[in-house]
Amino acid sequence: MPLIVTGSVGIDSVEAPSGTAVDVLGGSAVYFAAAASFFGPVRLVAAVGEDAPPELERILDHFGVDRTGLERRAGSQTFRWSGRYLDDMNQRETVSVDLNVLAESLPPVPEAYRDSRHIFLANTDPGSQFELLQHFPDRAIAVADTMDIWIHDHRPALEKLLAQVDGIVLNDSEAAALTGETNMVHAGTVIRGMGPHFAVIKRGEHGALLSHEVGTAALPAFPSPHVVDPTGAGDSFAGGMMGHLASVGRDDFDTLRTAMAWGTVVASFNIESFSLECLERIDRAAIDQRFAQYRAMLQID
Amino acid sequence: MPLIVTGSVGIDSVEAPSGTAVDVLGGSAVYFAAAASFFGPVRLVAAVGEDAPPELERILDHFGVDRTGLERRAGSQTFRWSGRYLDDMNQRETVSVDLNVLAESLPPVPEAYRDSRHIFLANTDPGSQFELLQHFPDRAIAVADTMDIWIHDHRPALEKLLAQVDGIVLNDSEAAALTGETNMVHAGTVIRGMGPHFAVIKRGEHGALLSHEVGTAALPAFPSPHVVDPTGAGDSFAGGMMGHLASVGRDDFDTLRTAMAWGTVVASFNIESFSLECLERIDRAAIDQRFAQYRAMLQID
Repeated sequence: MPLIVTGSVGIDSVEAPSGTAVDVLGGSAVYFAAAASFFGPVRLVAAVGEDAPPELERILDHFGVDRTGLERRAGSQTFRWSGRYLDDMNQRETVSVDLNVLAESLPPVPEAYRDSRHIFLANTDPGSQFELLQHFPDRAIAVADTMDIWIHDHRPALEKLLAQVDGIVLNDSEAAALTGETNMVHAGTVIRGMGPHFAVIKRGEHGALLSHEVGTAALPAFPSPHVVDPTGAGDSFAGGMMGHLASVGRDDFDTLRTAMAWGTVVASFNIESFSLECLERIDRAAIDQRFAQYRAMLQID
Repeated sequence: MPLIVTGSVGIDSVEAPSGTAVDVLGGSAVYFAAAASFFGPVRLVAAVGEDAPPELERILDHFGVDRTGLERRAGSQTFRWSGRYLDDMNQRETVSVDLNVLAESLPPVPEAYRDSRHIFLANTDPGSQFELLQHFPDRAIAVADTMDIWIHDHRPALEKLLAQVDGIVLNDSEAAALTGETNMVHAGTVIRGMGPHFAVIKRGEHGALLSHEVGTAALPAFPSPHVVDPTGAGDSFAGGMMGHLASVGRDDFDTLRTAMAWGTVVASFNIESFSLECLERIDRAAIDQRFAQYRAMLQID
């Protein structure tokens, strides 16, 4: 069943020790959709402005993403983000953010998308995520991403959203901010108490942790010697994870662990280039091969 | 074949969000020996002063550690360390260090220890580690721990040591300091270029990374909800790891991964209490049970 993602399409500029990229395609929904596309059909709901890069449609088509829900809004400007990675690639500074079209009304959700079963609400304000979620009455698995700003400044809206989703994906510092717990096992339990039956806590190069009523699981990142640009790592992780969940149609503990492993592997490719370059270059066979390597790395005798 | 550890016995005082412990038994060699004792016989080479806690021998006997090489030095004082953990338990401040007997001559190595095959040189200055290593001409696997101060201030001695050991264990920040590489896959490769055929890079609550000519492996920490005191986590990790290596007599890539998993599990018990309390309370069956849990957590379908 198709997986749908709502979120941002952006024009990014990135400075990293590995080089710089200016005005390249980015945005949470783009990274997510590209990553998820290796696992099955993906639908996109997002708005861009008149200045959206001309290659946007070509790249989405390359990944086979259904872009019926992509709105090119006349008179608007596309979301822009620029950031800088410090020496160790784990610290990011946002240089500038221009919300542009993201600060306007939500993109319309096509009627044909109403039957979507697997929903990923990529990072945006929780009020919008909640509103978008209501368009999918037949949803089976709905998962949201969130971040610090919403935790601090939109908490009631976030709590309302959490009560309606099956899972939440967030960083460790965000999980700590949301729960007041610095131990991530406890933080996961507290988050699940707010509604979702699972929480995936991302730790960047240190992997991710799953909190579920059946137990807690920690998985490492794939140890990569080729880190060019971590932008989109979290979104491509979520894309691989949700792509697998949608392809099997379950979200039990063991399926979630496996889904996180797929997300980990797809994200490990994403960070090997700026923008979508690496994901555009690879195919499912390359992902399968690295997945086998990752699984073997974790196979303890 | 017996495993031998050279290192410190200390009197520790610890402040943590979970409570405080004053003048409790600690030291790298003690944590290591206790952890390794679950896997086979352990010999200890260490010096303490007249003020060493009366329970020292009782605790070493509890773990069945051969303490022929423990010197109680008349007129000397035992190494003392006091530290404080901040809110998230990952940041440690050293409040005070009194080297005392550690600043004096090395303890004598008993002649009966000369046939030791598996050697762990717990953290101390690399000149002393090198000198101690020469007492074991029949060694099969020799591994050293090190830390920032030696990397910065005793580099020639450390390089001389690295040329003679099979493996090195150090933190990620230390690996970065030693190599100038912030990517740990690269750092591991550079370290192996200095001599050892493997490097184990510890990442605290984020697990550990193995660099070996066969490949790189990352393993997560066991996700623990009960973190009372991280003191000794790295030493008990190394103890479990070396205990397993000594018990099977190999240090190939797959054996090292398995050994790191054992180390991870033993360390996860150690941090559940101050000092050696938790390790004193458990038995091998408890370790085996958690190892099975850890292995299942990493089993991806």
